[in-house]
Amino acid sequence: MYWSKLFIPTLRENPAEAEVASHQLLLRAGYIRQLSAGIYSYLFLAQRSLLKITRIVRQEMDAIGGQEMLLPALHPAEVWQESGRWEVMGANMFRLKDRWQHQLCLGMTHEEVMTAIARGELRSYKQLPQIWYQIQTKFRDEPRPKSGLLRMRQFLMKDSYSFDMDASGLDEAYEKHRRAYCRIFDRCGLKYLVVEAHSGAMGGSQSQEFMAPTEAGEDHVAVCASCGYAANLEKAESEPVAPLAADPPGDLAPHKFHTPGRKTIAEVSAFTGLPETSQIKSLVMVAGGEPVLVLVRGDHSLSETKFAGVAGAPDVRPAHPEEIRERFGADAGSLGPVGIRGMRILADLALAGRRNMIAGANQDDYHLRHVTPGEDFTPEWHDLRQAAEGDRCRNCGKPLELKKTVEIGHIFKLGYKYSESMGLRVLNASGAEVTPIMGSYGIGIERILSAAVESYHDLDGMSLPPAIAPFEVVVTPVNNSDAAQRKAAMEIYRECLAQRLDALLDDRDERPGVKFKDADLIGIPYRITVGKKLAQGKVEVFNRRTRETAAVPTGEAPAFVRNTVS
Amino acid sequence: MYWSKLFIPTLRENPAEAEVASHQLLLRAGYIRQLSAGIYSYLFLAQRSLLKITRIVRQEMDAIGGQEMLLPALHPAEVWQESGRWEVMGANMFRLKDRWQHQLCLGMTHEEVMTAIARGELRSYKQLPQIWYQIQTKFRDEPRPKSGLLRMRQFLMKDSYSFDMDASGLDEAYEKHRRAYCRIFDRCGLKYLVVEAHSGAMGGSQSQEFMAPTEAGEDHVAVCASCGYAANLEKAESEPVAPLAADPPGDLAPHKFHTPGRKTIAEVSAFTGLPETSQIKSLVMVAGGEPVLVLVRGDHSLSETKFAGVAGAPDVRPAHPEEIRERFGADAGSLGPVGIRGMRILADLALAGRRNMIAGANQDDYHLRHVTPGEDFTPEWHDLRQAAEGDRCRNCGKPLELKKTVEIGHIFKLGYKYSESMGLRVLNASGAEVTPIMGSYGIGIERILSAAVESYHDLDGMSLPPAIAPFEVVVTPVNNSDAAQRKAAMEIYRECLAQRLDALLDDRDERPGVKFKDADLIGIPYRITVGKKLAQGKVEVFNRRTRETAAVPTGEAPAFVRNTVS
Repeated sequence: MYWSKLFIPTLRENPAEAEVASHQLLLRAGYIRQLSAGIYSYLFLAQRSLLKITRIVRQEMDAIGGQEMLLPALHPAEVWQESGRWEVMGANMFRLKDRWQHQLCLGMTHEEVMTAIARGELRSYKQLPQIWYQIQTKFRDEPRPKSGLLRMRQFLMKDSYSFDMDASGLDEAYEKHRRAYCRIFDRCGLKYLVVEAHSGAMGGSQSQEFMAPTEAGEDHVAVCASCGYAANLEKAESEPVAPLAADPPGDLAPHKFHTPGRKTIAEVSAFTGLPETSQIKSLVMVAGGEPVLVLVRGDHSLSETKFAGVAGAPDVRPAHPEEIRERFGADAGSLGPVGIRGMRILADLALAGRRNMIAGANQDDYHLRHVTPGEDFTPEWHDLRQAAEGDRCRNCGKPLELKKTVEIGHIFKLGYKYSESMGLRVLNASGAEVTPIMGSYGIGIERILSAAVESYHDLDGMSLPPAIAPFEVVVTPVNNSDAAQRKAAMEIYRECLAQRLDALLDDRDERPGVKFKDADLIGIPYRITVGKKLAQGKVEVFNRRTRETAAVPTGEAPAFVRNTVS
Repeated sequence: MYWSKLFIPTLRENPAEAEVASHQLLLRAGYIRQLSAGIYSYLFLAQRSLLKITRIVRQEMDAIGGQEMLLPALHPAEVWQESGRWEVMGANMFRLKDRWQHQLCLGMTHEEVMTAIARGELRSYKQLPQIWYQIQTKFRDEPRPKSGLLRMRQFLMKDSYSFDMDASGLDEAYEKHRRAYCRIFDRCGLKYLVVEAHSGAMGGSQSQEFMAPTEAGEDHVAVCASCGYAANLEKAESEPVAPLAADPPGDLAPHKFHTPGRKTIAEVSAFTGLPETSQIKSLVMVAGGEPVLVLVRGDHSLSETKFAGVAGAPDVRPAHPEEIRERFGADAGSLGPVGIRGMRILADLALAGRRNMIAGANQDDYHLRHVTPGEDFTPEWHDLRQAAEGDRCRNCGKPLELKKTVEIGHIFKLGYKYSESMGLRVLNASGAEVTPIMGSYGIGIERILSAAVESYHDLDGMSLPPAIAPFEVVVTPVNNSDAAQRKAAMEIYRECLAQRLDALLDDRDERPGVKFKDADLIGIPYRITVGKKLAQGKVEVFNRRTRETAAVPTGEAPAFVRNTVS
């Protein structure tokens, strides 16, 4: 294609509204424009890159026997009511009424619709296994849309769904997806981690996330460089650092003392002279409408995800101040487990075996000394804490590293959640009705592009992997009014096309500096520059990522790039 | 691919809810399933066919220099308010509010968003011309969703938009699209007509529709087999049949007479003994909130589209009975133009020069004789009637034929409607601000599939054109438990793939009748049947559309199909 004919509205400056690199560069390089909060138009360059990404996704999904479908974006409320998620999705779901006042929503995901199709059509074990997928638009009314294409209210997803007769079938479908996802991200040229994940509102058991490390990410991942353990921070298991001091001496009999105005763990620590590790942090959560007292060590944080998994309720949240006051007779800064009855008490394992600790007295401005878990109260013991920097790996004892990441893929073993709630049943080989087991698997299409920009950019712009760049190579005559350069550039461009390179000819009447800057900005991996060396039968091949330039005989430049790309 | 692994849920019977052939067959052949009124899931076969259609559309759009984009489906109300269409679209537009109570809608089309992008980015004549397109989901809350994929509430469209400096640029973009559309529909194997059309809610001047003739269609087209004139019925111009009798004798002085209980044209004709062609039919329309009296010959019908064009108001409708009573003092069956003041009167050209006609007296149960247009009232003269069977072509005088069709494409010269209302301005070569001129162009992706099914089906199922069939050829061993047949079928299947045929192997353990029936139903254009003749080194190549069978040497069958397809 000829650059002079294309619509590539590059900007000189980074747009003020954009904070993260991918957002800045996708705007500056003319890939995208915002229409509304979290809603973007994909211009020519973005769409060209997204089409390459979807082609790779499609090829790898087809390779594992996935059958492509295309399901509606508009869903009747009924299918979501059947699965119970009409309520669960809350304000994240776009809802609307049609002209007959029927309640509809915009699909956030498609477990319900896929299961409804399966329920209507699958009758026998002979029809299983199945893997169905689509590449399609999803809608989520994000509370905080931001970071360009990283957190949007409308986005593209490849979502697939597996249906199997039993758990080993599901294991196979899951493993096929895991491998396909690795191939997809490898082919797209991304760096990524595969981490243990929680399954959130999806239900189900095992799940893994594919995470691209980037400072723009808002997901935290704990990684062990030594043994390879990697998990979402919310789910990561780890050995906490030991308490900073031995258990305080004491008589094991809780004993109230005055702590005027001391509400936080830090304040009580300063006041008592005992480290934070000697305190019990008491938090009140609400799960399924019921308050639950949750205890972690003073220096630890609760993982709400682990709590939700233990609580077993679909909706969990911190209690409101009024709820706490009403139930405990004290404010959040003075709560503790001693004397609490008629309420579930969950304690993190790091508190097990500890003695003579400090906890709130359930009376404002008072705490208790000499509180001993298991003696003064009897909690349910669970892993509830969130891993932290400095923790050690459970597998190998080496220190864990925390990384900021963005999720680019997610694979779930859903189990029977949807097949059961929506009544999907097939006959097995002995003629008995059984419930198939399901998996669900997603890839964020735009996230691949954003993650690539986050990983591969410099001050001049982006340097995309050739497989997903809008063009593989740009041919740039330094001076477009020089007939020899123009002619040579055109010949090289044609030869690039003949070599099946996705090539662009920068035929604009611009200064060379402008042309180089623009090509650097939009991230074309290779540039063949036709300049003064033409007289000696040479052109320059510039590698955008390494910024290295090689002088190559004019006729060989396309093959040179072809070999480098492949 | 192996049929045994695929999800192709064929049905034995035509589903009761489906009336038109494409709806019945797409359901029966397992292409689609309904999720809700006018909302369908596209299963494996439909998606495979739709992907082939989009590939053809994309190639031809790229070939005319179209640049692909992807715009959002969710639009803020503001862009539609700017163009004035927020109101015009009425109940056809899906509207919703987000979590911040901002008003949004689902895109019915994208003139507004495209113009907003152009307004933000185009600055100079040097950036023009541009052709931007996308292949994307549209949403329309159809009052009567029906006929499967023919009238849906969510559907795929290729829509493109051209921006030019002047009318001759627009002519060129329009002509490029017209040719591209012909190539697209030709490549998809469709029969179609290109007809003059009205532009409806789109605004603008010239427009043409691409119509596929089918009994399932709800658009009527007038076609002259002799000179090739073709137009949407609402827009078609024609010579009406002459009045059945000469003008009645009379004194040219309107004269009231009693017509008790006679309200319709037919009743008054029977009562007076004069033909319908001697009557003036008086209709009351409301345009822009004002009543307008519209007159056509007694045997003619009003084209509301022509009326809307003449009225020049965005909203036109028939008047309600109460409005008529209030304004005329009589009901609809007794209205006429004589004595009407303070109201626009429009008369169809077929009434010009007529004398002594019959019209209502604006008094219940009374009519007037001897009414002469131009004497007894002074109307504005326009072409307002809808063409009818039996009319003659304006170009060549030969009889027009009326055909039922479905619209598969539409091209519009929008003119300045959107660029002006939304303030798109660029600098011309002399540095002056000018408003670019726009065109908009659409293709219904699913309509192509539906129209193909409507055109090419028989009692056994569909027979799709090879370019858009989900597979080009199916290889069917008659008896899958016969090792020799199985082996030969597999070899033929592999050779088909090597010949770049999109091939399916029917490896199911089914009776041959079932396999043949299924392949006939889903419309695979060619079947290579591996049966008893294998012993003589032959297989059968079956042509689905002609139902002809050719015995071909086993090794030559793939090449035979390859040559036939190409």
